[in-house]
Amino acid sequence: MKVVVSVGGSVLAPNLEPDRIGEYARVIETLDEAGHEIGIVVGGGPTAREYITTARDLGANEIELDQLGIAVTRLNSRLLIAALGEAAAPAPVESYDEGRAALRRGDVPVMGGTVAGQTTDAVSAALAEHVGADLLVYATSVPGVFSADPNEDDDAERYEEIAAGELVDLIAGIEMNAGSNAPVDLLAAKIIERAGLRSIVLDGTDPTAVRRAVETGEHDGTDVVP
Amino acid sequence: MKVVVSVGGSVLAPNLEPDRIGEYARVIETLDEAGHEIGIVVGGGPTAREYITTARDLGANEIELDQLGIAVTRLNSRLLIAALGEAAAPAPVESYDEGRAALRRGDVPVMGGTVAGQTTDAVSAALAEHVGADLLVYATSVPGVFSADPNEDDDAERYEEIAAGELVDLIAGIEMNAGSNAPVDLLAAKIIERAGLRSIVLDGTDPTAVRRAVETGEHDGTDVVP
Amino acid sequence: MKVVVSVGGSVLAPNLEPDRIGEYARVIETLDEAGHEIGIVVGGGPTAREYITTARDLGANEIELDQLGIAVTRLNSRLLIAALGEAAAPAPVESYDEGRAALRRGDVPVMGGTVAGQTTDAVSAALAEHVGADLLVYATSVPGVFSADPNEDDDAERYEEIAAGELVDLIAGIEMNAGSNAPVDLLAAKIIERAGLRSIVLDGTDPTAVRRAVETGEHDGTDVVP
Amino acid sequence: MKVVVSVGGSVLAPNLEPDRIGEYARVIETLDEAGHEIGIVVGGGPTAREYITTARDLGANEIELDQLGIAVTRLNSRLLIAALGEAAAPAPVESYDEGRAALRRGDVPVMGGTVAGQTTDAVSAALAEHVGADLLVYATSVPGVFSADPNEDDDAERYEEIAAGELVDLIAGIEMNAGSNAPVDLLAAKIIERAGLRSIVLDGTDPTAVRRAVETGEHDGTDVVP
Amino acid sequence: MKVVVSVGGSVLAPNLEPDRIGEYARVIETLDEAGHEIGIVVGGGPTAREYITTARDLGANEIELDQLGIAVTRLNSRLLIAALGEAAAPAPVESYDEGRAALRRGDVPVMGGTVAGQTTDAVSAALAEHVGADLLVYATSVPGVFSADPNEDDDAERYEEIAAGELVDLIAGIEMNAGSNAPVDLLAAKIIERAGLRSIVLDGTDPTAVRRAVETGEHDGTDVVP
Amino acid sequence: MKVVVSVGGSVLAPNLEPDRIGEYARVIETLDEAGHEIGIVVGGGPTAREYITTARDLGANEIELDQLGIAVTRLNSRLLIAALGEAAAPAPVESYDEGRAALRRGDVPVMGGTVAGQTTDAVSAALAEHVGADLLVYATSVPGVFSADPNEDDDAERYEEIAAGELVDLIAGIEMNAGSNAPVDLLAAKIIERAGLRSIVLDGTDPTAVRRAVETGEHDGTDVVP
Repeated sequence: MKVVVSVGGSVLAPNLEPDRIGEYARVIETLDEAGHEIGIVVGGGPTAREYITTARDLGANEIELDQLGIAVTRLNSRLLIAALGEAAAPAPVESYDEGRAALRRGDVPVMGGTVAGQTTDAVSAALAEHVGADLLVYATSVPGVFSADPNEDDDAERYEEIAAGELVDLIAGIEMNAGSNAPVDLLAAKIIERAGLRSIVLDGTDPTAVRRAVETGEHDGTDVVP
Repeated sequence: MKVVVSVGGSVLAPNLEPDRIGEYARVIETLDEAGHEIGIVVGGGPTAREYITTARDLGANEIELDQLGIAVTRLNSRLLIAALGEAAAPAPVESYDEGRAALRRGDVPVMGGTVAGQTTDAVSAALAEHVGADLLVYATSVPGVFSADPNEDDDAERYEEIAAGELVDLIAGIEMNAGSNAPVDLLAAKIIERAGLRSIVLDGTDPTAVRRAVETGEHDGTDVVP
Repeated sequence: MKVVVSVGGSVLAPNLEPDRIGEYARVIETLDEAGHEIGIVVGGGPTAREYITTARDLGANEIELDQLGIAVTRLNSRLLIAALGEAAAPAPVESYDEGRAALRRGDVPVMGGTVAGQTTDAVSAALAEHVGADLLVYATSVPGVFSADPNEDDDAERYEEIAAGELVDLIAGIEMNAGSNAPVDLLAAKIIERAGLRSIVLDGTDPTAVRRAVETGEHDGTDVVP
Repeated sequence: MKVVVSVGGSVLAPNLEPDRIGEYARVIETLDEAGHEIGIVVGGGPTAREYITTARDLGANEIELDQLGIAVTRLNSRLLIAALGEAAAPAPVESYDEGRAALRRGDVPVMGGTVAGQTTDAVSAALAEHVGADLLVYATSVPGVFSADPNEDDDAERYEEIAAGELVDLIAGIEMNAGSNAPVDLLAAKIIERAGLRSIVLDGTDPTAVRRAVETGEHDGTDVVP
Repeated sequence: MKVVVSVGGSVLAPNLEPDRIGEYARVIETLDEAGHEIGIVVGGGPTAREYITTARDLGANEIELDQLGIAVTRLNSRLLIAALGEAAAPAPVESYDEGRAALRRGDVPVMGGTVAGQTTDAVSAALAEHVGADLLVYATSVPGVFSADPNEDDDAERYEEIAAGELVDLIAGIEMNAGSNAPVDLLAAKIIERAGLRSIVLDGTDPTAVRRAVETGEHDGTDVVP
Repeated sequence: MKVVVSVGGSVLAPNLEPDRIGEYARVIETLDEAGHEIGIVVGGGPTAREYITTARDLGANEIELDQLGIAVTRLNSRLLIAALGEAAAPAPVESYDEGRAALRRGDVPVMGGTVAGQTTDAVSAALAEHVGADLLVYATSVPGVFSADPNEDDDAERYEEIAAGELVDLIAGIEMNAGSNAPVDLLAAKIIERAGLRSIVLDGTDPTAVRRAVETGEHDGTDVVP
């Protein structure tokens, strides 16, 4: 199966400790060795937030902040590449074509952000679309797609399954209300919808959840169905 | 004044005739010589649409279609560069940093698209934000921002002025309803809002309208106010 | 067999309709699957001519016109890449070394122009020389090499076979007389001669003619013999 | 005066707080406005150390660790660029030629590391040599060159002045004893010697010390004399 | 006046001695300081020939030989750049757009070859066309354009003046006869003709001849007139 | 076995004659075909020295001299690539990641220098570390590591074996005394030590010595043991 896994920065490297990253590497290697084709997109996480906060104080504009964030996603990618060793393409992948080429020659591409104005949520969906992935997994810090922000609303309920079109509507609504957190951003949701990508949003704090989802389709998150 | 002008592909080169492009070049040169700093972002227009239609028939995915569209925006950029001669940076600009560097050394950067998933509407707003533009002008094929799609609804009214936040809401609403045309896309509107960019959306079929808007602030389109 | 096929822009995409491109893709896939190593060079065709005409009107110099033409050859390459899907290198190839590397790892390289002052005729011959091709096929809009321009001279006769040295002389003579069309340009002919490349010039409007020529050596065009 | 300033990562961004970076930006702007030509090289500091520690745990080799460190120096460069605004070249400079070109056109180049196996100490000296700098300032976390490691040896004395040749010998001796800290590394010292670069090593925790050293030649560190 | 000077490799560096290169640098600096805009294209000369001979023996194809030759033209360019110091763009220029950009910002671009299949004769003419040069000077090892090869035919006469069209015919004739040396190659001559470039072919063994030709129009070579 | 071979420029191309290069190519092909993974790093040799001497006379700084030297290492790389044909990556490799990627896909990477301030000695060690080589062979113009410079001291004795730490000390001592030649430079020795690289320094004038060393571990040079 061809799978793109989007690993949030706070999920991969909550405090830069090697354990979580090593566990992700083992999951990816296991899937790779089992014959799956795996592409990874890594987020920025806490390091990105720290740099962005400082740069904003120093008067950086939002484009410069995005550029900082992208640079951190590539730093984080290098950590995962180091842990993957020979399985991974040796340098962070910077374009969709490069990601596709790596996958085709049997390497695991590890990709960060691409350009200001585009999150790694959207990069993940675009990479999945470009390589014709069978499955896109978002390993995030929330355990799925909810009817409301679970941190703010006790009645928030997790969807076991949601249609891609509904996901777009839900997120468009969330993005209207600044301050709320969407599980993936609107551009990502739109790409998922248009590409008919089978997707899963799950809690990535346990990397083996990703492995189980790929191998068995079972998980405790949300299925986004085309 | 530092100004970014976004020229839609159908506005710049509706049928690849040189007249319109030449008129745009003259407007830009006039503004440049008057001491304004001008950056240009060019869209894809009819050529992009033709290539995209054919590629879709051939089984291209949306990322590949975007890549084709971006390649055409750079082709169109070369036409404008040829017409601008010594005033322009000699090759199409491909990143925000490059655009900012060109502007700083006194050249007119002419930029097309950047990466799949990002329109030239959004590129224009991002470039304007990155260079700290005083004004962003969208020279489009519709004469401003309307309460509804003027091609479909006779009661559609043009806003003389609209707040950036309202623009975001309006476009979010439009994008919900597939098939309707927004004057600029949602990401562009959000960048305009967050950056507090003074913007004008106007009918670009007459290039001198751009010149008048920059020189006098007068125009028949819509002011987007921060 | 290692083969470079040069597909003229007017042959591949006379009016950007997908059918012809799709047929070429099928021919290439068939040859690829049969174990042949195939490299493709694509020309600019009508879109290049339109952009060049407009740019010339706008005062572009010939180097800028060539740059536009090259950009269009890469656009056209993307169409063929989209149609080829997994068989092709995912982005247009821009150098001879890249083309050779793609071929070696089993991908079909699709290449356009390289630099101002060099046509895709010459690029095709140079790529063929660099990869050590067994055969170079020019799929053009004229059905072979003629003793005179068949559009202007009723007595023009098609050569079934011509020695590479004679081809050089013939084309040198044609290029002396502006306005006449050579089947390939002089630099291409010289490379064919010096490299001792077995070449075929044939009518490419029927893509299966290319397949037949590669598979059986039979065709209705002209054999250029070393 | 043409000056290259090497700002250690722990000096520029000990904990990523914006104050120190902002002060450095003001010092650079002041010198720039006073007509000095300033080039900056930025180190990796604590963020680099954190990433390197984690990556080493994950099995990265030293080349990969250096690559991580270089990526962080460029992140840090972006912070300083954001604070410098229009005075700086808009993106981190990655080669000596680029640094020289930026300086020549009146921009402040901000550079990080270049390639594995070369520290920013050495990059600073090489940039200074390449641009023909009149002065090279190392703004470090130790207040000069000492006869021994001041953190380990109470009798360590600071040199007010040291010849470049002696500096090379001193550092060669220090590098023999693993665990000891040299104020600059051996390659840097050798470049300083061969290029006859007037250099100052000073405590960079107070950025105005750099300004005073450039403007008056006075400082509380060590003069390295050619 | 805007001038492109093409300096043959055997003229610039007949045996890699610094004197000739230094004299060329002084001539260029003098012209630069006098307000002329100067672009330089440098050939490969004896070093290129040695490498090419060896590589041919080792089985290199002609494309690889051209690549070697191009690499040597860039080596030679670096020698001239070193001698020019601050007047020159700091690295060899590799594209026509880059050369034009350097000239515009007041640097002397020093360029070598571009791509296999294109000589530095042709590169010089193309650069001259692209920057809109008023004059193109070929500083070669023969003292002008002759009616026949002066080394082989005692009756060979030097043209004081020749029309560009006649030059094309003359060179086409020469290229027919392998072994004969043309003063510039056919592509160069064709670009000169189409661009209407005023050109001079002169003996470059005395660099001051180039200076005199630019400053006074006087020389002992051949004027190629549009 | 994974092996990096560092071939000094004077060893590979003492006077640019093809024989030695051809012999090296045959040795590499033989090892490649026997299943070893081979990476090559090539030095600058006499051509580099000539260019550097001339450029120094012309006032080049040491960074520019290094850049010239690096350019020559890539020229020499192209000679070896030509001789290797299909076994080698088609263009000189310019980064450690690229070298690793080439090796992984089964090509022989041929690499020259990387950046000013870093010799090909150090590049060889760094590449060996980055690819996880089992063996690093320095094919040099001296037959091993000596207790003193064998050209100056008759009592100089060759080490059959030396510990990496001792090698570092030995070379540090040699580098103190300008004018003396070290078999490899200090940075290279340090990388060998830290990476625990099994290394051999041997006389490369007979290329088959490299083959014997790889195949049997036997040689007449010096073993550097981790």
